[in-house]
Amino acid sequence: MARKPSLTGFPEWLPAERIVEQHVLDTLRRVFELHGFSNIETRAVETVGQLLRKGEIDKEVYGVSRLQDDSALKDDPNALALHFDLTVPFARYVVENAGYLHFPFRRYQMQKVWRGERPQDGRFREFTQADVDIVGDGALPFRYDVELALVIAEALSALDLGEFRLRVNNRKLSEGFYLGLGLTDTAAVLRSIDKLEKMGAAKVSEELQAAGLSPEQATQALALAAIRASDGSFVDEVRALGVQHPLLEEGLDELRQVVEAAAVAAPGRVMADLSIARGLDYYTGTVYETVLVGHEKLGSICSGGRYESLASKGSKSYPGVGLSIGVSRLVSRLLAEQTLVPNREVPTAVLVALPNDGEWLRAQDVARQLRSRGIPTEVMATAEKFGKQIRHADRRGIPFVWFLGEAEAADQVKDIRSGEQRDADPSNWAPAASDLNAVVRRGVES
Amino acid sequence: MARKPSLTGFPEWLPAERIVEQHVLDTLRRVFELHGFSNIETRAVETVGQLLRKGEIDKEVYGVSRLQDDSALKDDPNALALHFDLTVPFARYVVENAGYLHFPFRRYQMQKVWRGERPQDGRFREFTQADVDIVGDGALPFRYDVELALVIAEALSALDLGEFRLRVNNRKLSEGFYLGLGLTDTAAVLRSIDKLEKMGAAKVSEELQAAGLSPEQATQALALAAIRASDGSFVDEVRALGVQHPLLEEGLDELRQVVEAAAVAAPGRVMADLSIARGLDYYTGTVYETVLVGHEKLGSICSGGRYESLASKGSKSYPGVGLSIGVSRLVSRLLAEQTLVPNREVPTAVLVALPNDGEWLRAQDVARQLRSRGIPTEVMATAEKFGKQIRHADRRGIPFVWFLGEAEAADQVKDIRSGEQRDADPSNWAPAASDLNAVVRRGVES
Repeated sequence: MARKPSLTGFPEWLPAERIVEQHVLDTLRRVFELHGFSNIETRAVETVGQLLRKGEIDKEVYGVSRLQDDSALKDDPNALALHFDLTVPFARYVVENAGYLHFPFRRYQMQKVWRGERPQDGRFREFTQADVDIVGDGALPFRYDVELALVIAEALSALDLGEFRLRVNNRKLSEGFYLGLGLTDTAAVLRSIDKLEKMGAAKVSEELQAAGLSPEQATQALALAAIRASDGSFVDEVRALGVQHPLLEEGLDELRQVVEAAAVAAPGRVMADLSIARGLDYYTGTVYETVLVGHEKLGSICSGGRYESLASKGSKSYPGVGLSIGVSRLVSRLLAEQTLVPNREVPTAVLVALPNDGEWLRAQDVARQLRSRGIPTEVMATAEKFGKQIRHADRRGIPFVWFLGEAEAADQVKDIRSGEQRDADPSNWAPAASDLNAVVRRGVES
Repeated sequence: MARKPSLTGFPEWLPAERIVEQHVLDTLRRVFELHGFSNIETRAVETVGQLLRKGEIDKEVYGVSRLQDDSALKDDPNALALHFDLTVPFARYVVENAGYLHFPFRRYQMQKVWRGERPQDGRFREFTQADVDIVGDGALPFRYDVELALVIAEALSALDLGEFRLRVNNRKLSEGFYLGLGLTDTAAVLRSIDKLEKMGAAKVSEELQAAGLSPEQATQALALAAIRASDGSFVDEVRALGVQHPLLEEGLDELRQVVEAAAVAAPGRVMADLSIARGLDYYTGTVYETVLVGHEKLGSICSGGRYESLASKGSKSYPGVGLSIGVSRLVSRLLAEQTLVPNREVPTAVLVALPNDGEWLRAQDVARQLRSRGIPTEVMATAEKFGKQIRHADRRGIPFVWFLGEAEAADQVKDIRSGEQRDADPSNWAPAASDLNAVVRRGVES
């Protein structure tokens, strides 16, 4: 982002930048729909009661009220506030519409979310998320955890951002291991392990011991977190640590299924990484994180996992598995580093020039013929000198200028990049496929 | 809308309904881009100062504040609030980014807006608008007013909603006529004429006379508003009323250009309707409204006009011309009347059945081959009885079920609507084009 947004934390893209963002959203949509995910959108607001259901206010929530009203939003659970993620609204949507949905319900959702964060680098207060989830009614086979890894690997490959790693772990594996070590507060251990990348092993070991682990237990927990593999070999490495627990076995088996299937269906994309904890979240099995190789500092661009209960209503619960892509953060990095760049700034492929003001309707007819074959076309509004009309196209990045033939002469079209000009018939001329639409290509390698 | 939204005024669509909305948005996007309009999005919030710049609070504005904060939003011009249209944010965007934009700047924008309306039928508090505008830097040739009429006529034709009329008038024409009648408060006359459809001619005449018009002047103003024509013949009808003014002449000439060009390029779609006033808005020349024939009660589904100054900065002003489509209101009507219906509820064309749980990776490979040729495909997660797997497809509206061949036998694909089943090769089988994607077609004629 070269320009500073006029409101901190609320980025806005220029038209050429929006082409990149739109390309990301279109690509995700295409892949998700190829895998049978339905799109939904939920309203931007939820009740305060719904958003703060768990009592925590760790996501900074924006309240919404009519300017005419004066009320203490915070104290009114029926007051409205902007959603801070797409999970809470999706849970409500599933419960409200369960009778109209078919389960397992496969949905993707790409919308803006808002968080009243204190401004700091890379933290947006308004940003777009793309979520993809499969939710069951009462039960959801484990296999969907494997499928989601394949879907995301395919989506990120389609984005062509360079090499990435989907790092997968399993909460049952970690928690079973800690239980096998004789620990009981497994959540606290997970929260410490989650800080490994930021704090390093020595500090985490200190923290674990401060929390009551023996030096040996801390060493074992860190040894587990050090294991990485892109095939099923991690199972033997874990076993070599000599810890046993039924939950550990269950987790090993599930993680092995994800990694082995991915080794076949998405080779090189997915790896077991036993340091992944996603400490504060409500996951109960598989957990996913994703890094762009060479851009590890960006953090995880796509995270998620399996949850036993997205929502519940009476005795019914809705387990699911899903991932969320931080589109705005990703796009802002792609733009800053010019990883993806548009071939031009406007949709337009052809500008029809005007020889004189009386020919405007004839020019519109040419444009109509070109558009009817999918060629984005504009017509000049005024008959300036041809040089000026060509400059108008050039400045806007339009590759072709069309000249109406006078008297019996054929029309001509000029590629203003090469200067080449030749006869053309509006009923059949077409640009090269690569010039037809504003598209995005790989830019600078960084 | 069959279901009642859980928050009044905040509609949410089911997946099949979202297909219809997405179809509308995709169609508009395609047409706008074919005409060289760039897409942008602006942030959801503006400062209260920006939104209430003109002192009026006729749009009900939602203030936004961190729940942790306590402040009187209304009294703080730097407080944040949700935008109530896309025009105010677009004006700010143009001024802020003028140095990065090429003028005339052609943009479309499709986003949600919020208004804290008192709940009532057909009034949403959150809804999607699609705006299309061309904005100049200092000046903008009149011809763009003609072009916008053609763009919108093409966009609405592409939506295939049935017959519609783009009703066009010109403020200069009406105001010049009133000035020629010797009236000075032309805005007041326009506001009364704007109520013609709701109140009828007799009441409007009373109101005009209460405002100081003579019976003859009121009669003349109403006679002007009664004129309609789908060609340039309205010019003579106006002249026959015997009123003269230079501004009237200018307006007649501009409106004639719009109607005559449309008669050639979009026959039957555009008409001069001299009752169109758009009373409260800031238009200065051409004004547009659009009705669906047979659904006149729905009101205008698409309105706009020419404005001399979208925004200004120092001595610079940005004139423009544009229209806005009320997408949510339109979609809610299309859904209620089943004007457009999807061919199925999910993107999926093919469900790959599982003969046993061990074949899941082989089934994924078939799915991968089909998807690589653009065929949306899902794989069963568990090997239930085939009858159950077929019912799973049937319930979700998936037209085809794929069966993996055992031993040397070929794979087979079953059209579960006809029951027809035949051999198929995942490397080359494809469904009929009409079954490939979830698409929308004309439904019940109403």
